[in-house]
Amino acid sequence: MGTTTQTRISLGLDFGTEAVRALLVDLAGNECASVAVKYKHGQITQTLPGSSKPLPNDAALQHPADWLDAAARATRRAMKEAGVSAEQVVGIGVDFTSCTMLPALADGTPLCLVNGFEGQAYAWPKLWKHHGAQEQADRITALAKRRKETWIDRYGGEIGLEWFFPKILETLEKAPKVYEAAEVWLEAGDWFVWQLAGLPVKELPRSTCQAGYKGMWSAGDGFPTAAFFKALDKRMANVVRDKMPGKLFAPGQRVGGLSKSMARKFGLAPGTAVSAAIIDAHAGLIGAGVSGAGTMVMVMGTSSCHMINAKVEKIVPGVAGVVDGGMLPGYFGYETGQAAVGDAFAWLLKLVGQKDFKHITEQAMHLPAGSEGVRCVDWFNGCRTPLMDGNLRGAFAGLSLSHGPGHLYRSLLEASACGVRWIVERMRDGGVPVRKYIATGGLPHHNPLMVQTYADILGSSIMVHPSTQGPALGAAILGAVAAGKKETGFGSIGSAIKTMSAPAAVGGKVYQPDRKQRKAYDTVYTDYLNFADWASQGRARKI
Amino acid sequence: MGTTTQTRISLGLDFGTEAVRALLVDLAGNECASVAVKYKHGQITQTLPGSSKPLPNDAALQHPADWLDAAARATRRAMKEAGVSAEQVVGIGVDFTSCTMLPALADGTPLCLVNGFEGQAYAWPKLWKHHGAQEQADRITALAKRRKETWIDRYGGEIGLEWFFPKILETLEKAPKVYEAAEVWLEAGDWFVWQLAGLPVKELPRSTCQAGYKGMWSAGDGFPTAAFFKALDKRMANVVRDKMPGKLFAPGQRVGGLSKSMARKFGLAPGTAVSAAIIDAHAGLIGAGVSGAGTMVMVMGTSSCHMINAKVEKIVPGVAGVVDGGMLPGYFGYETGQAAVGDAFAWLLKLVGQKDFKHITEQAMHLPAGSEGVRCVDWFNGCRTPLMDGNLRGAFAGLSLSHGPGHLYRSLLEASACGVRWIVERMRDGGVPVRKYIATGGLPHHNPLMVQTYADILGSSIMVHPSTQGPALGAAILGAVAAGKKETGFGSIGSAIKTMSAPAAVGGKVYQPDRKQRKAYDTVYTDYLNFADWASQGRARKI
Repeated sequence: MGTTTQTRISLGLDFGTEAVRALLVDLAGNECASVAVKYKHGQITQTLPGSSKPLPNDAALQHPADWLDAAARATRRAMKEAGVSAEQVVGIGVDFTSCTMLPALADGTPLCLVNGFEGQAYAWPKLWKHHGAQEQADRITALAKRRKETWIDRYGGEIGLEWFFPKILETLEKAPKVYEAAEVWLEAGDWFVWQLAGLPVKELPRSTCQAGYKGMWSAGDGFPTAAFFKALDKRMANVVRDKMPGKLFAPGQRVGGLSKSMARKFGLAPGTAVSAAIIDAHAGLIGAGVSGAGTMVMVMGTSSCHMINAKVEKIVPGVAGVVDGGMLPGYFGYETGQAAVGDAFAWLLKLVGQKDFKHITEQAMHLPAGSEGVRCVDWFNGCRTPLMDGNLRGAFAGLSLSHGPGHLYRSLLEASACGVRWIVERMRDGGVPVRKYIATGGLPHHNPLMVQTYADILGSSIMVHPSTQGPALGAAILGAVAAGKKETGFGSIGSAIKTMSAPAAVGGKVYQPDRKQRKAYDTVYTDYLNFADWASQGRARKI
Repeated sequence: MGTTTQTRISLGLDFGTEAVRALLVDLAGNECASVAVKYKHGQITQTLPGSSKPLPNDAALQHPADWLDAAARATRRAMKEAGVSAEQVVGIGVDFTSCTMLPALADGTPLCLVNGFEGQAYAWPKLWKHHGAQEQADRITALAKRRKETWIDRYGGEIGLEWFFPKILETLEKAPKVYEAAEVWLEAGDWFVWQLAGLPVKELPRSTCQAGYKGMWSAGDGFPTAAFFKALDKRMANVVRDKMPGKLFAPGQRVGGLSKSMARKFGLAPGTAVSAAIIDAHAGLIGAGVSGAGTMVMVMGTSSCHMINAKVEKIVPGVAGVVDGGMLPGYFGYETGQAAVGDAFAWLLKLVGQKDFKHITEQAMHLPAGSEGVRCVDWFNGCRTPLMDGNLRGAFAGLSLSHGPGHLYRSLLEASACGVRWIVERMRDGGVPVRKYIATGGLPHHNPLMVQTYADILGSSIMVHPSTQGPALGAAILGAVAAGKKETGFGSIGSAIKTMSAPAAVGGKVYQPDRKQRKAYDTVYTDYLNFADWASQGRARKI
């Protein structure tokens, strides 16, 4: 199935932490080209560009010019590789890490590029993993509880340190002049889409997905009230009115057409439909072909994000976000996650002084279910769902002189799987059905022992999605949806997902659970809950 | 201070797990020669000599001929090295690992050397660390409690799996023909002393130290009653009467003179005074110069034994043995211990893939008190004192992605020190004063960070005894005592200890606690108790 000059194409731009990927697919979902380009400045964690002053330990920043430059380069190369003309591209979808955010001027200029602010760390875009706002997040949580704000329930009773308003408050407190000078605060994904479409600031397109999951926004209530922000810090009372202009758009909604200047930069046609942005993990769910309720998509990498949709809105304690239409129109999207997965495996490998996973995997593979009594709690970077506490820590127990690295590794895999089972059981108890599992992200492809362990402990089969480009495909699907029915023939986002995600799913490997080991794994799970309960000082059993 | 032909000498024979050491000292405690000779068969753990049949996993046996041969070789070489004549040696003391025990015929022949029994594993001497009798120990404990036997209280309410009667019961159940054929069951130290003195079986000299600490014997009550053994197993009812002939002797008591044949074998004079045996660790206490109450001697190697004497007899829950005159005449000797110390350090080193302690020690040394939040429970080979449970297991908690091997190691050292503090606090709560600390054994000499951590967490100074031959010196002191006042001038064991242990103590390094870190270490200790309580399912706090 070659690409002819008549074939209509959608462009997905997938912004990761280190690089952006441009994926071109046709409306049947066939990949035409896929090109990744690294950001010139990567993650900025040591010193600002052109400075030698060290940044704080927990700083993680990015350069906004990198986003535009790398995306344009990736797009041009992909177009060339696929032999696609500008006219063939009907839509552009964008997914982005989140909450990666920045202060800007009303004309779109990032504040860090404004004269006099280049040397000011707080003027630069803060990457999702920037961890300078724990204290601020704690205070927002405490205040919301004290004031009985209803929105806090949608986030499991805890506001994350990586979210939008903690990062703004951090800036206000650490660099009030930056806060003052910022005319617009916004998500990086929204900034990028805004730049593509070249819209005036009043029409700045904010994604309901980012706003809902990271900005305490909901369709019914909007953002938190001025009274709340006033109680948090007087200077921030009118942050929404004064510094957050724009309109809300759902992912897949057309925010406008590509501007002339951006069309030139990207080698695309002016007016090409541009979709509102979506969070990268949520784009992965769409790319994995989920168009309805009950399928949990586990996006697994250094950390994991487990997403599921339901027809019902339920307040599930400890579930970080439920957003109406946050992932799919007409469904409540639930987001859960584990803070350290691949990261924890890599840490253990380094701890035991090994260079690759070959040896330790072989050892772990030959151990029985339950790792000969070794137990683990997988909170080596805190517990995301359901305890929402970055300060919690990991642990191993049941250790004897006869145990080796393979025991630790297997017990860590089992703990990681127990962590998912715990989330699933909280969801089910809360009235959100979970019936099927799809694993995506880089990790499931490289770690069959992990996927098998997950299947065993969940007691359910797991399909590993063969595509490693789920988010980029999801973004491209949204680009096609934004292009409109007339252009694409898709009457709904569901039909676009079903059609366009199908080719990528061919050959997905299915892992079946080992039913004979069911009882042994149930014991491991019970032990996990007990151990987690101790490690959280009794909070695990209460949730 | 040269050795003249007039100088009187005592010989200490120190039987360890891999080798025996012969130490010659004069009556002022000056070392004349010290020679260690390895056992030809070492520890027998895989197959019996002359057989290829694999032994059970938990088997650890020895060859009785090795004891005589290696001891004779070591003695001859030491005599030659020191230029000492047979006539100069006034006494022989013997310390031995315990409970290392064997079945024998009434003429002293070990059963394993009797025709037809060579291929029978249960006929061979079981080394102290032979761990095949857990089940039997548990049943003895349970029965004693059910019958309200008063002796169980002296052992903290738990009989150890390494002790004398569990090992006999294991043999009776696994190899009834061996049990039947055994005319004498005895400790290896007693067997060796018996052989040296060449006494008839009715005068077989059994040590009150071994009998008291490992054989549930006391001066007041003797061994457990026939009624008890009958209830345990009918066939074992008369084990004491029928299979344990002999007389009880305190360490330092003369059991007889060296036999002619043994004098020939060892190159010593017939009739040389032979002392009753003593357990190796207890000999270490004497060698460290302890002749009274209140000083805890910590013998630290792969595992640790912490001993202390008191004027009072107190039942301290979880303290494995209190024996009247078990270590020093006129004092109640208390024995406590930790099951994995050097063993646990070596295990951790291997776990993290390092070859020596240099790098990990440097990392650990530069971490603050409390290992940046990492906590450990040091039960990697079970908990000896106070929980007396070989099935308990070790653990680490408080782990994050920023922690490395140094954190694990420092937290392990801190846990090990907390384990001693826990023992000391149990002792003090039980009315047994602990005022001073002496560290001996191989480990304190090689691991200054460990000793410093112990001093910090105990909040007390610790003297590291400079001699690495404490048990051998203790044995030699007992040899001198057995020689009698007429020969040596020592009117009491106390005066022999004070005189003869003095030279070896010169230059002992004293570690002072870091008082500024007191609070931090108190927190570590509180956390340790909490963690241990969880790891023992609530037993730690109850004891």
